[in-house]
Amino acid sequence: MRRYLFRNDYSFGAHPKVLAALAETNLEGNAGYGDDPYCGRAQDLIRDLCQCPQAKVEFLIGGTQTNFTAIAAFLRPWEGVIAAESSHINGHESGAVEATGHKILPLPTGPDGKLTPEQLLPLLERHKDVHLVKPRLVEIADATESGMVYTKAELTALSRLCRDNGLLLFLDGARLGSALASPASDLTLPDLARLTDAFTIGGTKNGALLGEALVITDPALQPDFFRIKKQRGAVLAKGWLLGAQFEALLKDGLYFEMARHANAMAARLQAGLKALGWTLWVDSPTNQVFAVVDAAAKARLDAICAYEEWCPAQEPGHTVIRLVTCFATAPEDVDGLLAALR
Amino acid sequence: MRRYLFRNDYSFGAHPKVLAALAETNLEGNAGYGDDPYCGRAQDLIRDLCQCPQAKVEFLIGGTQTNFTAIAAFLRPWEGVIAAESSHINGHESGAVEATGHKILPLPTGPDGKLTPEQLLPLLERHKDVHLVKPRLVEIADATESGMVYTKAELTALSRLCRDNGLLLFLDGARLGSALASPASDLTLPDLARLTDAFTIGGTKNGALLGEALVITDPALQPDFFRIKKQRGAVLAKGWLLGAQFEALLKDGLYFEMARHANAMAARLQAGLKALGWTLWVDSPTNQVFAVVDAAAKARLDAICAYEEWCPAQEPGHTVIRLVTCFATAPEDVDGLLAALR
Amino acid sequence: MRRYLFRNDYSFGAHPKVLAALAETNLEGNAGYGDDPYCGRAQDLIRDLCQCPQAKVEFLIGGTQTNFTAIAAFLRPWEGVIAAESSHINGHESGAVEATGHKILPLPTGPDGKLTPEQLLPLLERHKDVHLVKPRLVEIADATESGMVYTKAELTALSRLCRDNGLLLFLDGARLGSALASPASDLTLPDLARLTDAFTIGGTKNGALLGEALVITDPALQPDFFRIKKQRGAVLAKGWLLGAQFEALLKDGLYFEMARHANAMAARLQAGLKALGWTLWVDSPTNQVFAVVDAAAKARLDAICAYEEWCPAQEPGHTVIRLVTCFATAPEDVDGLLAALR
Amino acid sequence: MRRYLFRNDYSFGAHPKVLAALAETNLEGNAGYGDDPYCGRAQDLIRDLCQCPQAKVEFLIGGTQTNFTAIAAFLRPWEGVIAAESSHINGHESGAVEATGHKILPLPTGPDGKLTPEQLLPLLERHKDVHLVKPRLVEIADATESGMVYTKAELTALSRLCRDNGLLLFLDGARLGSALASPASDLTLPDLARLTDAFTIGGTKNGALLGEALVITDPALQPDFFRIKKQRGAVLAKGWLLGAQFEALLKDGLYFEMARHANAMAARLQAGLKALGWTLWVDSPTNQVFAVVDAAAKARLDAICAYEEWCPAQEPGHTVIRLVTCFATAPEDVDGLLAALR
Repeated sequence: MRRYLFRNDYSFGAHPKVLAALAETNLEGNAGYGDDPYCGRAQDLIRDLCQCPQAKVEFLIGGTQTNFTAIAAFLRPWEGVIAAESSHINGHESGAVEATGHKILPLPTGPDGKLTPEQLLPLLERHKDVHLVKPRLVEIADATESGMVYTKAELTALSRLCRDNGLLLFLDGARLGSALASPASDLTLPDLARLTDAFTIGGTKNGALLGEALVITDPALQPDFFRIKKQRGAVLAKGWLLGAQFEALLKDGLYFEMARHANAMAARLQAGLKALGWTLWVDSPTNQVFAVVDAAAKARLDAICAYEEWCPAQEPGHTVIRLVTCFATAPEDVDGLLAALR
Repeated sequence: MRRYLFRNDYSFGAHPKVLAALAETNLEGNAGYGDDPYCGRAQDLIRDLCQCPQAKVEFLIGGTQTNFTAIAAFLRPWEGVIAAESSHINGHESGAVEATGHKILPLPTGPDGKLTPEQLLPLLERHKDVHLVKPRLVEIADATESGMVYTKAELTALSRLCRDNGLLLFLDGARLGSALASPASDLTLPDLARLTDAFTIGGTKNGALLGEALVITDPALQPDFFRIKKQRGAVLAKGWLLGAQFEALLKDGLYFEMARHANAMAARLQAGLKALGWTLWVDSPTNQVFAVVDAAAKARLDAICAYEEWCPAQEPGHTVIRLVTCFATAPEDVDGLLAALR
Repeated sequence: MRRYLFRNDYSFGAHPKVLAALAETNLEGNAGYGDDPYCGRAQDLIRDLCQCPQAKVEFLIGGTQTNFTAIAAFLRPWEGVIAAESSHINGHESGAVEATGHKILPLPTGPDGKLTPEQLLPLLERHKDVHLVKPRLVEIADATESGMVYTKAELTALSRLCRDNGLLLFLDGARLGSALASPASDLTLPDLARLTDAFTIGGTKNGALLGEALVITDPALQPDFFRIKKQRGAVLAKGWLLGAQFEALLKDGLYFEMARHANAMAARLQAGLKALGWTLWVDSPTNQVFAVVDAAAKARLDAICAYEEWCPAQEPGHTVIRLVTCFATAPEDVDGLLAALR
Repeated sequence: MRRYLFRNDYSFGAHPKVLAALAETNLEGNAGYGDDPYCGRAQDLIRDLCQCPQAKVEFLIGGTQTNFTAIAAFLRPWEGVIAAESSHINGHESGAVEATGHKILPLPTGPDGKLTPEQLLPLLERHKDVHLVKPRLVEIADATESGMVYTKAELTALSRLCRDNGLLLFLDGARLGSALASPASDLTLPDLARLTDAFTIGGTKNGALLGEALVITDPALQPDFFRIKKQRGAVLAKGWLLGAQFEALLKDGLYFEMARHANAMAARLQAGLKALGWTLWVDSPTNQVFAVVDAAAKARLDAICAYEEWCPAQEPGHTVIRLVTCFATAPEDVDGLLAALR
């Protein structure tokens, strides 16, 4: 096995406190399907943190599942999803949204992966043609696939455009901890609750074994959600496992503490790579680092480090690679990798 | 909280050995999506136990998800599923199979929930009419919804009918441990591998936190399964969690040991209820006990015991109730409940 | 070819007046997709005949298509359809409703194929369980598959139950002409518009080449219907062909005139068969005649008459057969068949 | 109404010979659902013209329907469709393909709308990643949306790439007559049968009231097609209407005669517009003419001519418009429009 593990933020299990919370429930006996006190308390916690008492909070198992279940629940059959061409739902989910019957209308973006109101308007204009899918939901991710974050001004502008045009705004927060904990972000959970119709708080990539919280703030989207969650295989029989984890993550700030740590480790790595003369693809303010490497650098990495090839770089013979940090990344891991690359 | 917990077999977490195995992996760092040594070893174990080296073994998260993902993967759009009217897929999965586009063709059964070749033939005859759905897959469960088991003779007859008529045979083994460990069953894992095209080995209801193993024995059904598993949200990012649990369940016989224990507890409870003069709905050889109670008996149960109302009984004013045992049920729990009911 | 054609009511093309109306449009040049004056006038006519100015009227091509497009448009993914076990959507549409993702919850009926409020209540009660599909739409047909009709009292009772329980009521009127023109029916188009949320006026089985009118009276179900109609292949490029036919059918009462004729021919046939000592399966008041025949009678029919085998009869060795009349059935056809059978 | 009708090729009904053929069947009495001698003879004709005796020929009603029914029939749930970004299925079919669960993987093209093998290879490489949809079918149209045609060399290269990579090749021939009759095309029906796995012969846009013939040459794609055709609402009850039209279209060469005429009218119009100094968007060899107009020219057209706005032109303030000819376009129509524009 390679010495340095920067492949992704789901290579380790749970934060020890989360695992301990989960283990404590083991032989208690609890009601199934989320109808237990852990889920109840975790839902209350999330509503409090979001300052959104009317929010419906649903726990699901994984990110792809949460995205397609929410989209299938929110849309009518003839409605489509506007999303960045580089978005996770448009690529790495094996057509999950389309498998629920909905077309994704992809918009090209820069490497930051962020959508802007200016991009949306011509698409909306074009789709007034009733022979085309009706755009109804705008999907964004924070952080984006390339680790960038939305500012409050940007999200406010998108939100306003959506509300002015009858569009729902759904934010995929698989890496929400890292985004909100980033120095580049001035957004808060209450902002998200106020500016979107639904968003997720990802557990899997920030210290949980598994689990995503879906926060549905728009009351019109709330009814009957359990039935479609069941239908799409997203109801965990032993549902308290999700509640107990989210309670442990959120009750004392552990969630954001881990995210800040992961971000700090990424910043340390990014600074170190720059100092080594490496070229970055984007200057990421979150827990993902993207570098442009030539074949020689790549070979050196291959010998010692688990990472991911991201895409071909514009420069011939170069590759964009991704290195990801998480709660379990120690400063020594970063420094060790940098030393080895020196 | 009620004193005696017989509501179902997913009220407790994992067997302590399974939880320990899972916890040991926590900070190791493992590849995601099931591409890890735990899954690899657990797949090998299952192939060995099934004496079926060509089987493809896939780990999924929950039962509903496994059923609809397998059915969606195996069928063409115009093909339907023959299943018992009382089957889980026809009722308690919120239309999950239909949500993948496939009609279930339900057949009435007795309280045992078992299908017979004799029932299938007229349906096959009728569905030669090309204006109807083409029956292509027979879904059965072992144990059935009412805890009954198939014998080797019965499964052999169904299998033969399926093969003679171009039908796939898929066995939902959410409670397979309890079924195979039952004194009423003469079936083995190699029998299932030989007689079905695919079947599942349920973890959730027999000592795992979560997880179902899908064993696809028919080579024609194996290609590309990962892609649809991903598409339907059934790929766990931290996939080794499933592999580590199944390895712990299967490597030393813990899975069947727990199932025998649960069956023994159910038999003890069933005998005790009979001794108390209670009427049973079926004489279950597995870990589910079904009794017919009047309002007075039900009120006594309500005060002390978590159980499930199953269906109205034929006798006016009576109800069929279900009591379920599992690995965590102690003899004292059974005896305590019986004493309290005396 | 057999001499007497009673196989169904779509064995002939269009009533000559309908064909003439269609032919007159042939080289005019018209806007496509239903955006033409014929469709406009036919929609107005239908709104007038229904005394329902707020109705949205959509023309579609065939019956199966109309049923699944309407159901897919009206329902959310977790919602199901209550229908008679013997209904067309539950059998002879090759799983079309399920292919849109919705479960049909079939209810057994007598040979009349009619649903009653009493039957619905226990199903509604059972489906309060959120692990099951949510029943949301009741589908009935008038005439039913076996040619029987609903009375105003019956439809009123069903409508009230639906409205009291948040259910939509959708009436498949593939044979609506024959139903409303039947002496057994006291229903009118305004009654249907008032008592249902949507219903269809079938053209195919009553004198059109093709075409069904879908009347959506519930304003909540009307928005965006064109987009899903397009998506499901139900928009005819040369849409005026449907408008011109429905205008011809409805402007001078031709539609009901043909239906009365077809009913009269069926009554004449039914009376004649009774006089011959034949047993009827149901005493149909519309254009379908169902008789119970033994092998000898069936052999005599086979030699001279196109008809349909319906189902096995209860009496061993007997078969229920169906004979259908339409606008093109002449009294001589009926009398000739009866004479030949004598 | 505007004087000159060049809006599209489905503004008129059927060629008089086709309408006459259809009318002759009107009161004959025919078996339903395509099980009639007209369909049988038309299927034989198509197999003969394609020199492909093993082809399965299916008649469907409209183009969108034919595309999604074929794609749904041919693909497994995790498989996607490669198509031009500008293709009809990716735009003007209201998400019909996605509504069957399949993702379209759009590739950008030039204004000609044609795909090349070179474009496909990087997409195939990228989609070896099993977290993505599996590309399985390449959809092209001949003529393309912008009226351009494939050459035999181009189609041969695409076909070879598909077969080398396990891809199906499906050709949308909604305007196949115009394509094959074009001087720019060296393709024949036998070429299409040999080089594709399935293709369509469009009736609607070339002289039929309605109807598309789907020619499935790949035997693996043929079984059970009727069942899915029924399921998707594509079986016409009075199916002989399709057979009679296709027989009339194909038995004496009328289909290609009309296409040559439409092409000649378009060439006459295109030459005339050039002579007037108009700029063409593409130099179309088929029955669609695309011109780039400024606001003044557009205003003059608006007063006298039905046409379609296609897309904004690159030059600010200019618009690409489309003028379409068909069997019913007379030389006088073309000359009259040109004179009026002079």
